[in-house]
Formats: sequence, structure tokens, C-alpha cells
Amino acid sequence: MAISPEARAAFLAAVGAAGVRDDEDTRQRYGTDALLRGHPADLVVVPSTVDQIAAITRVCRQFHIPLVVRGAGTGYTGGAVPVRGGVVLSMERFTRILEIDEVNQLAIVEPNVLTGDLQTAVEARGLFYPPDPASLAISAIGGNVAECAGGPRAVKYGTTRRYVLALQAVLPTGEIIRTGSKAVKNVVGYDLTQLLIGSEGTLAILTEITLRLLPKPAAVSTITATFADVAGAVGGVTALLAARVLPSTIELIDGGSLRAVERYLGRTVAPKSAGAMLVIEVDGVPGAVADEAALVTVACRAAGAIAVDAASDSAERDRLWEARRSLSYALRAAAPRKINHDVSVPRGHVPALFALLARLERDHDLWIPSFGHAGDGNIHVNFMVDPADAAQMTRAAAAADELFRGVVALEGSISGEHGIGFSKAQYLSLELSPDVIALMQRVKAAFDPSGILNPGKIWIDG
Amino acid sequence: MAISPEARAAFLAAVGAAGVRDDEDTRQRYGTDALLRGHPADLVVVPSTVDQIAAITRVCRQFHIPLVVRGAGTGYTGGAVPVRGGVVLSMERFTRILEIDEVNQLAIVEPNVLTGDLQTAVEARGLFYPPDPASLAISAIGGNVAECAGGPRAVKYGTTRRYVLALQAVLPTGEIIRTGSKAVKNVVGYDLTQLLIGSEGTLAILTEITLRLLPKPAAVSTITATFADVAGAVGGVTALLAARVLPSTIELIDGGSLRAVERYLGRTVAPKSAGAMLVIEVDGVPGAVADEAALVTVACRAAGAIAVDAASDSAERDRLWEARRSLSYALRAAAPRKINHDVSVPRGHVPALFALLARLERDHDLWIPSFGHAGDGNIHVNFMVDPADAAQMTRAAAAADELFRGVVALEGSISGEHGIGFSKAQYLSLELSPDVIALMQRVKAAFDPSGILNPGKIWIDG
Repeated sequence: MAISPEARAAFLAAVGAAGVRDDEDTRQRYGTDALLRGHPADLVVVPSTVDQIAAITRVCRQFHIPLVVRGAGTGYTGGAVPVRGGVVLSMERFTRILEIDEVNQLAIVEPNVLTGDLQTAVEARGLFYPPDPASLAISAIGGNVAECAGGPRAVKYGTTRRYVLALQAVLPTGEIIRTGSKAVKNVVGYDLTQLLIGSEGTLAILTEITLRLLPKPAAVSTITATFADVAGAVGGVTALLAARVLPSTIELIDGGSLRAVERYLGRTVAPKSAGAMLVIEVDGVPGAVADEAALVTVACRAAGAIAVDAASDSAERDRLWEARRSLSYALRAAAPRKINHDVSVPRGHVPALFALLARLERDHDLWIPSFGHAGDGNIHVNFMVDPADAAQMTRAAAAADELFRGVVALEGSISGEHGIGFSKAQYLSLELSPDVIALMQRVKAAFDPSGILNPGKIWIDG
Repeated sequence: MAISPEARAAFLAAVGAAGVRDDEDTRQRYGTDALLRGHPADLVVVPSTVDQIAAITRVCRQFHIPLVVRGAGTGYTGGAVPVRGGVVLSMERFTRILEIDEVNQLAIVEPNVLTGDLQTAVEARGLFYPPDPASLAISAIGGNVAECAGGPRAVKYGTTRRYVLALQAVLPTGEIIRTGSKAVKNVVGYDLTQLLIGSEGTLAILTEITLRLLPKPAAVSTITATFADVAGAVGGVTALLAARVLPSTIELIDGGSLRAVERYLGRTVAPKSAGAMLVIEVDGVPGAVADEAALVTVACRAAGAIAVDAASDSAERDRLWEARRSLSYALRAAAPRKINHDVSVPRGHVPALFALLARLERDHDLWIPSFGHAGDGNIHVNFMVDPADAAQMTRAAAAADELFRGVVALEGSISGEHGIGFSKAQYLSLELSPDVIALMQRVKAAFDPSGILNPGKIWIDG
């Protein structure tokens, strides 16, 4: 779509010349994210104040222009990317940590603070922001909230959802609202804070985020355990939970991923017979951590682990984490493109999920190394493909369809932390009933009666 | 309002004669809850199946009859009570624990399972359902979800919200929907599960609840610490959190409450100079618990505690909990009526809240013993009154108004765990802006376009 001269003038009046860009390069750059798909923006607006954001919504409403909010642009499902053009509103000027409150253990931030920068800032005060998406060095807290980001520590600490106390947001109808409060318990009216978390930029524009923090754990210990296969590793997970330990991370790496890491690093990281590895971390007060690490070691051995390693000093822990941390690089180096499907199943069904993946590899002649958050059944399933190979891409699409159907049959979910965006919108009805989708669309209309905010996301619209 | 013969016949057709009651005694009994206010039901329906519930919603819609869902009827704000009559739908036949899944650590229950019964059942399998509202022996899990119940353990384990994975619910438009899944991570579409939690029976009728469980902690230790005043006790809380301990409970009892308990028990429970007591619990693996209990003791002493006691065996722990557990009985015995306002402030503002309470006691000639969940700033403020004393009741109403204004000025919330119901609806606009209330009303209309479900709750409607 083209932006009319009248609309362009209205955007200029709203944010000033320095906040409006429509050169070809900018329009392209703001038209994609980590998914590497999307549609160029027709215009990019870069507001500096909340009032400017409210003014932008009014212009978009007046001229019926789609409005897509963009944070750091690191999403995997296209949540911050236009589907058919329109205006991209970049939050890049909202990068301040407004407050770190040690007494009340909370932080107030603008949305484009990078998650890793927030963690560093609060840890310097002895505090802790647990959510740790793999992208934390480059992803912004606003996008983490919009997509409800997870990460390895979610098994103990929960996802982003657990840490958001309050929001300031601009509605697509132009009102500036506040939800929640600094009080950690608040049951006054509907929990609009929780509703906005994970709403993928379709309900409101987040402008300020109040986050609950925890005391930083004083000690951490890392344990790796290798098993003959994924079922064995999941048995280890069940055994350590039965020992009443709740680790801060329980990461699983399958055999295909281990071999990719070994090729990438040029050395072995696990015994030759290993078909799966667990990377487990426990944290807390020092005595507790030592006790829990011992319980984890015993539980993994009892569950048939081939080898178990443990470390509590920093250098040794880094060594044990190397396989897990090298995974993304190793896989990216191993094929022209890695399509990451972050499916989620009840933990007990993880072996069945891996059995399904083995079948998809055979039936569709694909390589699907997989790894992820075994403790909460959220597995990153990586289709390793070459976009230039049309036949392989067709097979991958067929396998994705089978994967999502299989996950729903296993009582799971087609996305555990990346969201739907536009890339999974066609699969929504595999998981949600028509009545539920219709209800969500009525909720959407309650926020955005004109349908200007992030159209084409979550479901495919007209 | 009267139920027309046509409507009555339709309800009979929906649930059968055994499921319809309109004798005077039943209508009165289903017209109130722990608030001891409300309006009699015109008709009580007692369905046995989800399809019958859907049929009831259709009859109510057809005849424009208000529909109020009732669980165990133990709420403090009238959430399960008619405001102007209509039909009360009792969930009393939905009392089954459908599944306890040890591998996936979850339970599936019908809404009228008592919370305490659920806890006993899962603890027998080594599992743990943390939310522990004081009413747990008599309140049902459905009401806990509808109001987002908390309890002492919320400081470490969060409130009911954190444990609900999935819901089955009947919409007021008659559709039976499912939200969420058994997977602990799920970001597919809007989080309707979270939206329904705490919606006080105004959006949908909960018919099945899937709850996440944790491993039961192997050890627990209890510490009591007395301080000269509330500010000193809050200093103790800050000190123990600074020591990076996260107790499972941090309960605060003020001087007025301590004296009431001592009168009730006929013995001292704290030194004469004590103006506040903390009851702290730590839980986890045994070694950790001993370490954390020691850190708590040191932190409380350093913060100026008059006396500190600790116990890890069951009988000794019971002794330390006696003051806290006797509180409700002691206060109920101390005045004809106890009006419990469960306000919530950022933890650092708890001393300011108690300063406000001292002023309200003086200015309004009231006795306001208070106690509660100091770790998350959620304090039960008890106005001790005699309903027969009209002048005192007028002073109590004026003090409540000042209390709620003061709490909002302290960046807190007028309800931390009891909800708004109809009893606090007049105060809603102290905390929420007109734009936010209007948005909530649009969300309500998205679920309930006819406005039949639990009218007169959260906000005062026409």
C-alpha cells in the first residue's frame, strides 16, 4: 500500500521529520526479522515519547493504515514485521532503565532495553531477572513481553509472564493506559497485564514495563549427564524430579545435535555411545546447591546415565555448558537455513515427540537435530534446509504440518515461546477450536475495533 | 425479580427436577457468602454435566435472567452471590479429582474439589499444590481460580495464577471451550486461561481445571522473630531477602493482633515489648533448609529482633505457628464482626501502611488489628465492628474509604487476593482509570454480549 501525502504529513506532524523515514533501505530493513521473511514497511516512524505514539495510532486509524510495532526485531515468527506493508513503529528510542528498586525488588524499564543489559544492571545490585531467552544479548524486553519469552531457566523460574507486575501501554484507539501496580498481588478487575503478555503486538503498544525481581542466587552448580538415547535422558529428568529437586535448568541435546556440535568444535563432547545429553543447573544458597547437585548426580546415575560430570566453579561450568552454547552456531554452520519450530509437550511425552521426529526424518528425508528445555517439554525442533532446494523445502513444509498435528495429538502446543506471528497462523486451528478463535477475535475487537494494529498475525485475516 | 413459569419449565427441562430448587431456605442460603451480605436467589440450579451448564446459559440468555455461579460460597467480597436475584448455578456436584499425573506433575479436577482435599491427595503422591488460602479446608479450587486466591506461600510460590495450565469453561453464550494445554509452556493466541483467572465469575463458567504441581519439598523449618514494632519487622524481611533467602512464607502479625491472640489463648505468645511478630518458613532439600533457617535467624537478629525461635520438627513448628493460626478465631471472638480488607502495597511501603492504620484507629475511634503476608505486602486489615452500632459502622465506612485511597497513594492495590465482587465495586475507580474500566467492560462484552453472567460485580452496572 502507498502512504498518501496527507497521511505522511500527519505522521510528520506527530513525530517530526527526524522520526519519519521512508528510504528504500530503511523500509527493507524494518520489513523482516530473524524469520527472514515479511514485507517492507511503507513508512517507518520513530517516536520519542508516549504522546507521539498515541498520535501515531490516531493517524493510522484516521487513514486506515496498518501499524506494526517493532522492538529489537529478533523474533522467529514475524511478530514485528508487516504482512502487507503499512507503518512500522520502531521503539528504538525507548531504551532507558527508569528505576531499579532494591527494597521492593523491581525494575521499571522502557521496552527497548536489551534483556541482557537489564540482567547485568540488576545483578550488579544483587538482584536477578530470571527469564533467559537464548537471544538475550540482542532481544529487547518489550519483545520478550509481547511474545512471552522463555529460556532454560523457565523450568524453575517460569517465563516472562511471571515477572511482569505492571504495564503502561497505548491502545490502538489512542488512550494511554496503566495496568497492574507495583504490588506483587493485585486482583482488581481483569488481569489486562497478563492478557497483553504474549499478545504479539496485536492489542496495544507497550511503552513502560514494571518487572518483579528476585534475590540473585548465591551459588550455582552445573551437571551434565549423557544417556544412550532421549528416552533414557527423560528418565533421568523424571528421576531427579522424583528426588524432589527443582533445577533452574534442565536442557536436553539429542544425538544429531551432539554430533553437529562435535563437528563444529572439532572435538568430542560426549561418549561415542551417547544419544542424548542433559545439562542441568541447580542454584540457591551454597549448602543447598551442593546437596541438590549430589541428588541430581545420583538420580541420573540411577536412571542409567553413561557419564555424569559436575562443576560449581565458573570455568568448569563454562566447559560443561560449551556443547549447549555452541549448538546454535553449530547448526547454523551445518546447513544454509535452520527453521526452528519451538513446540511444547507435557514432559512425559518428550520421548514420543522424539520418536515422531525420527519418523519425520525418515519419511521426509530431512535432518532434524533437536534440543531444548526438557524440564518443561519445550523442544526446539530444527529443520535443516536449503531454500534453493525447492523439493526439500516442500518436504519440510509437509513435515512441519505433521509435526504440529503430532504435537497437538500429544496434548502439547505448537509454540512454547516464539509465538504464532504470521509464520504459524495457518496452523492455529490445529490447536484452537473455532469457538476459541472467534472469542479471541472478539477480544481483539474490544481493544482494536478498527483492526489497525498488527493485522495478519495469530490468525489469517481478510 | 420473579422467574416466569416458562423460564422455570426451561430450567427443569435443562437439568431435571432434582436439579431445580426454589424453597425459601435454599434461596436464602445461596444468597450470601462469608461477606454475610447479598440478595436471595430466585432459583437455584444444580447441574450434573457440562452440557446441562451450557443449556442453563441458553435459558438465562433467552429469558434475560442474571446467572451467578457458586462454588463453596466462602468468598469475602460477594463474588458468588446475587446482587438483584436471578439464578444461582451451584457447582456442588462437580467434586471429582479426575486425574493426578505423577510423570507430568499435574492434576485435573472439577471445580468444587476443596483445595485442602486436593493438597492431601497430591501430597500422598509426593507432589505439592502450593497455594494455601486460609480457607483451604472449606474453599473450592474453582473459587480459588475465579478469585485468584493467594495465601502465605505466595511469597515464594506465587498465587493460584501460577498453577493453572488449562481450563474447560462454558461461555455465557453457550459454547464449551478449552483454553491452554497440558504443556507448561504455551504461547498460542491470547492467554484466555490467565484472563479467566481472577475474573470473578463474570466471563465464563469454569467446569474443569488442569493444575501444575511441584515436587513436595522434603524439609520445612519454621522461625518466629519478634520486634519492637512493624517497621522493625519489615526491616527483618528486607534483611533476610538481602541475604538471598527466599522463604516459602513471611507472615507478619501486628501488636494489636498479638494481644488479641494472647487474650484468646490465655497465655503470652510474645515478649511484652513485642509490637510485631514474623512467622517465617523455609522449605526445600534438608541441607538447604538448615542453611536458610540459619541465615534467616542471623538476618532477623541483625535487624534488631527481640527474640528468635526456630524449629524443624513438626510439633515444635506447630507451636510456633499457633499465634498465626489462632488469629482468625481470636479476632472473630473479639468483636461481633470482623471486616477483612485485603489490601496490598509494595513491600517497602508496609511500614507506611501500618502508620496509616494507626492514624485511622485514632481518627475514627476503631480497633484495626492487622496481619498478613509481609513478604509480598498483602496485609489483612481487620475492622472490628458491631453491626448494631450504626455510628461505628459509619466511622468504619469512612475509614475504609481512606484506607483504599491511602493504599493507592502507596502504589498498591485495593485487593491482593479476595477480589472486588460487589463489596468493593464502588472503590474500583480509585485504582483504575476510566479508560481501563471501559476497556474491561468491552472485554466483558466480548465474552458476554447479553450481560447475563454475574452482573453487578467488579463495577457497579446499570
